[in-house]
Amino acid sequence: MRAVDIIRRKRDGGELTPSEIEAFVAAAAHDTWPEYQLSALLMAIWLNGMTPAETAHLTHSMCHSGKRYDWSSIPGPKVDKHSTGGVGDKTSLILAPLVAACDGIVPMMSGRGLGHTGGTLDKLESIPGFRVGLHENELREALAKIGVGLIGQTAAVAPADKKLYALRDVTATVESIPLITASILSKKLAEGIDALVMDVKVGRGAFMKTLPDARALAKSIVSVGAANGLKTEALITAMEHPLGRAIGNSLEIIECIETLKGNGPRDLETLSVTLAARMIRLAGLAADDQEAERKIRDALTSGAGLEKFRAIIEQQRGDPRVIDDYSRLPSVSHRHYLKAERNGYVADLNAELLGHGAMVLGAGRHQAEDQVDHAVGIIIHSPVGTRVTPGDDILEIHYRDDGKLQQALHWLSKAVRLESDAPAAMPLIHEILTEET
Amino acid sequence: MRAVDIIRRKRDGGELTPSEIEAFVAAAAHDTWPEYQLSALLMAIWLNGMTPAETAHLTHSMCHSGKRYDWSSIPGPKVDKHSTGGVGDKTSLILAPLVAACDGIVPMMSGRGLGHTGGTLDKLESIPGFRVGLHENELREALAKIGVGLIGQTAAVAPADKKLYALRDVTATVESIPLITASILSKKLAEGIDALVMDVKVGRGAFMKTLPDARALAKSIVSVGAANGLKTEALITAMEHPLGRAIGNSLEIIECIETLKGNGPRDLETLSVTLAARMIRLAGLAADDQEAERKIRDALTSGAGLEKFRAIIEQQRGDPRVIDDYSRLPSVSHRHYLKAERNGYVADLNAELLGHGAMVLGAGRHQAEDQVDHAVGIIIHSPVGTRVTPGDDILEIHYRDDGKLQQALHWLSKAVRLESDAPAAMPLIHEILTEET
Repeated sequence: MRAVDIIRRKRDGGELTPSEIEAFVAAAAHDTWPEYQLSALLMAIWLNGMTPAETAHLTHSMCHSGKRYDWSSIPGPKVDKHSTGGVGDKTSLILAPLVAACDGIVPMMSGRGLGHTGGTLDKLESIPGFRVGLHENELREALAKIGVGLIGQTAAVAPADKKLYALRDVTATVESIPLITASILSKKLAEGIDALVMDVKVGRGAFMKTLPDARALAKSIVSVGAANGLKTEALITAMEHPLGRAIGNSLEIIECIETLKGNGPRDLETLSVTLAARMIRLAGLAADDQEAERKIRDALTSGAGLEKFRAIIEQQRGDPRVIDDYSRLPSVSHRHYLKAERNGYVADLNAELLGHGAMVLGAGRHQAEDQVDHAVGIIIHSPVGTRVTPGDDILEIHYRDDGKLQQALHWLSKAVRLESDAPAAMPLIHEILTEET
Repeated sequence: MRAVDIIRRKRDGGELTPSEIEAFVAAAAHDTWPEYQLSALLMAIWLNGMTPAETAHLTHSMCHSGKRYDWSSIPGPKVDKHSTGGVGDKTSLILAPLVAACDGIVPMMSGRGLGHTGGTLDKLESIPGFRVGLHENELREALAKIGVGLIGQTAAVAPADKKLYALRDVTATVESIPLITASILSKKLAEGIDALVMDVKVGRGAFMKTLPDARALAKSIVSVGAANGLKTEALITAMEHPLGRAIGNSLEIIECIETLKGNGPRDLETLSVTLAARMIRLAGLAADDQEAERKIRDALTSGAGLEKFRAIIEQQRGDPRVIDDYSRLPSVSHRHYLKAERNGYVADLNAELLGHGAMVLGAGRHQAEDQVDHAVGIIIHSPVGTRVTPGDDILEIHYRDDGKLQQALHWLSKAVRLESDAPAAMPLIHEILTEET
């Protein structure tokens, strides 16, 4: 089976056979094709697409290209959530303890932030001492003991995806529904989970900018998940504005703890509870949607979720005192306030521009090699819909470096828009796709 | 200007700017982009095409990526012919001396054979001592003295094309009208010619299998040639059956000499004369088509063309005695005859299968590194349309190795088809495209 023949078939719009897909994936995992052949095939896939059957095979092959975890020795359903990424999207850190508090087993493997979107690992690492690099036996111990572990993807998982993702990034072949589907699901399948709730973000701050694109990805993930034996649901949720009121690693940890204490902003709490409820329902831990939501709400109001978060920090060698003493988290002393200059309503807080501003402050990465500053970030004092008068604080900027502040303000000042009339309310959750839909 | 942005624009069906095309070509020539980015862009071009303006810029940039010859110190119009390649296609060796005999200056740079098609350089090298690797000053001397030089492309010409062609070959991006156009014309423009007659072959033995494909390439070459200041015409000519009666290097040289002596097969003589006449007409050496054809016919019948061929051989250090003594050319003693087994007409001699058979005998290359056996080949005793009776010779096979003969017969026996009725005559020249059409 020659690479050039496989490329030609996809170039001509044909359907690749399972063995052709396996050859491609093996070549990516073991460097047996030159990169110029991998990238030519990626571009042909980008332009000519893949059938659901091809995408399912691709996902399967990529998952099987590396390490796959098996938690069958640990009782209870294994369930995870994955988000396509957004600005201020910190639901993982809230829902993982809530689900674990409701007897779900959550072996959550996350990534780091890139560009304007943050990463769960970076947020966790603002907690002094917190280790995201657990070995398999340590993760097993965490799952057995407290039902949850929050770790980074290891190089052993889906090596074909690592290779292909790096190539896609530099060959303009990222935004492809089949390739995105296989990239996400191959890694989630390798986690050894039974059920997955997918949060597909849509809007200016998201990877998917339009509802049709988000719906296409959501449908693809649900059907390809099912084809690979994974119970899968997808929610399409709004990412026009940031989620919650904090952007930046330490600041987001504080917001997560506040939410687990019952003081979270409405949008963040609602989405976290909804996702967590879908997870335990899909995992078979609740008889219906109402029971699932009641159980998760109970875990929130009883403080069981907060205590589970404390247990996670302890289990992963972080300093659990941060829960009661935020001064133990990294912080900076400099503040700058972006204020309202006239009367009106906050009509827009552009998530992408705010995320970009936060990245420029140091909270995120422009390139994968960049170091993250856990202390800097942005607090939204006046979320969208707030009525403001001149001098009211809209954004509170935590910065370390005056030069970076000035660069960030270039983006942040554009992100805020005031109008005379109150903006129309926008839905937080657009659609829920289940295997039946 | 980032590679990934240029790739994305073409991926999305956009038109690349001249500076984006220049960046791509410079990257190919100087290895400043990784090959995976070059190949991703090649696939995007293959699938989304290029406008005539983009193709013209690509051609210009590729030409300017390397050495360009300037023969302005030599009086007379510089003119060349290029063929997309066929089986038994040896017109270059006939028309170059004829055109030079009519005062055209022919700085012809040719390639080697690959696959089922032969190469002009391989044919020339069957002449003992013949040097195709003339240095620039030697070619200049040849053009000044006898008006013609037949040489191989040097590595200095269009290095971007060399790089891109090698990548296209292994990434299934060869068959693209804009990429083919730029590859051919960038090298022809670098030859320093004023006029080019393009022979676009169409049929089973050709690169272009259908008339619409051949017409698209012909149109592209004529318009892109004109856009780059080159007087360009294209003929679309038949390549269903081999051209002439000889396939194989020495055997084709003999056929060329016989044609220049006035004893050539009708199809080969007609096409060579037609192409040569178009060349001198396009070069301004004849007032109209009739005068052009008359001049070329005169050069043929007077023996001026043959004497020019002798001069070429002498100038390039070959043994000119081959013209009168074919035994000085490489030959093999083994013969095998493929004979008619029943009464009928030769209805088909499949050019691709015959070319493949000749390659297997050793006359051509399966891979670029292969050595060519100049002596082996095939003589067609009964061309298409011949009435045969059982025992009549159809093919005379000159072979060196019995094993290779047996492999070749696998192809050759399939190439021949007899029918009870005489086949319909097929046109040799389908269309002529000029800048005005």
